[in-house]
Amino acid sequence: MREVFQQEMREVQERLVEIAGLVADSIEKATKAFNESDVTLAEEVIAEDPKIDAATVELDELAITILARQQPVARDLRIVVSALRISASLERMGDLATHIAQLARYRFPDKVVPKALRPTFAEMGRLDVEIARKLADLLQDTSNVKLAEEIHDEDDKVDALHLEVFDKVLGETWKGETVDTVDATLASRYHERFADHAVLIAKKVLYLATGDWVPESV
Amino acid sequence: MREVFQQEMREVQERLVEIAGLVADSIEKATKAFNESDVTLAEEVIAEDPKIDAATVELDELAITILARQQPVARDLRIVVSALRISASLERMGDLATHIAQLARYRFPDKVVPKALRPTFAEMGRLDVEIARKLADLLQDTSNVKLAEEIHDEDDKVDALHLEVFDKVLGETWKGETVDTVDATLASRYHERFADHAVLIAKKVLYLATGDWVPESV
Repeated sequence: MREVFQQEMREVQERLVEIAGLVADSIEKATKAFNESDVTLAEEVIAEDPKIDAATVELDELAITILARQQPVARDLRIVVSALRISASLERMGDLATHIAQLARYRFPDKVVPKALRPTFAEMGRLDVEIARKLADLLQDTSNVKLAEEIHDEDDKVDALHLEVFDKVLGETWKGETVDTVDATLASRYHERFADHAVLIAKKVLYLATGDWVPESV
Repeated sequence: MREVFQQEMREVQERLVEIAGLVADSIEKATKAFNESDVTLAEEVIAEDPKIDAATVELDELAITILARQQPVARDLRIVVSALRISASLERMGDLATHIAQLARYRFPDKVVPKALRPTFAEMGRLDVEIARKLADLLQDTSNVKLAEEIHDEDDKVDALHLEVFDKVLGETWKGETVDTVDATLASRYHERFADHAVLIAKKVLYLATGDWVPESV
């Protein structure tokens, strides 16, 4: 029974890695679409989000089937519950990438943010992509504490850039129109929440490696 | 066994109702603090959020214990998984109420939004409070389809008001400063996400009543 459980959990893990890969592709395209005003890429992200949603629903069904058939207890049970939590966060990360792509599409052919903010968003986007790639790696190599720490550190950088966006927008040199202010505020929030979810997932994965149960709130 | 399960699930349900009540209190105080620039009330919301977090963590532990001890299958299993999902959304609703309270605190003694937007936010806040109260009632009376529909309809109204905020901010008569634009954008987003989570929960509860399993994505 235990062996079957472990085999089924490897399947869960593979699917989580796969979904994290889709999310990483999605945020990579979304931030490129956002920074370069590439409407085709933006539409690709928007069109592909239902695939991420469907993959997480399938994964949840698999996890529930494992709970029903294998009746795991103790640590095994918590691993399955963690998988359900991770799936929910990945689904949300896909939504946030889509929101970033939608901003790019709405403003096309204009760029979403004025020149003064572009380097900040380019760096936020780069960090979000890197975080997502590392997250996929961490889901593959769950005992890699270093990767989890890197995700955590990069999230700190995203938070600092999020504050930098507000500093620039509220600074005296800001020349953006109101629509620029609205879009920069939303875009910055989406980038920041995306990284938050990655940290949440990394904490759960660390639990799988270390046995320290991490509650839901981050 | 089944009887024990049902008794334990009543305990889960009671706790969900209780947490939803805390969330409703929190959004009621947060929107009042936001609309009336009441910093004492804002600080109360911020100080009390850890209680909601702790209550959801305890609930999750109870649900996991039930999974381990009762080994539910089929519909019973899905009910426990739904409870975990509902708990996560309630925790997030508490966070969003706290974010609204934080905006009120940052801007004190000023009001967060200029006069032109106050009626819109007053109405959004009123709807969020009503949605949260109805959600607590629905968690108590899970077969009340009418309540779930009302939550859904009120969420549609919140979405419309969310768009109205952008229309006003981007309209020609908008006289707000950049900081007003930023705060209105964030506040509107928080109000809108709060109602989204309520709809997500209502869908899960309807499943408990009707047996139609609702996947995670909303």
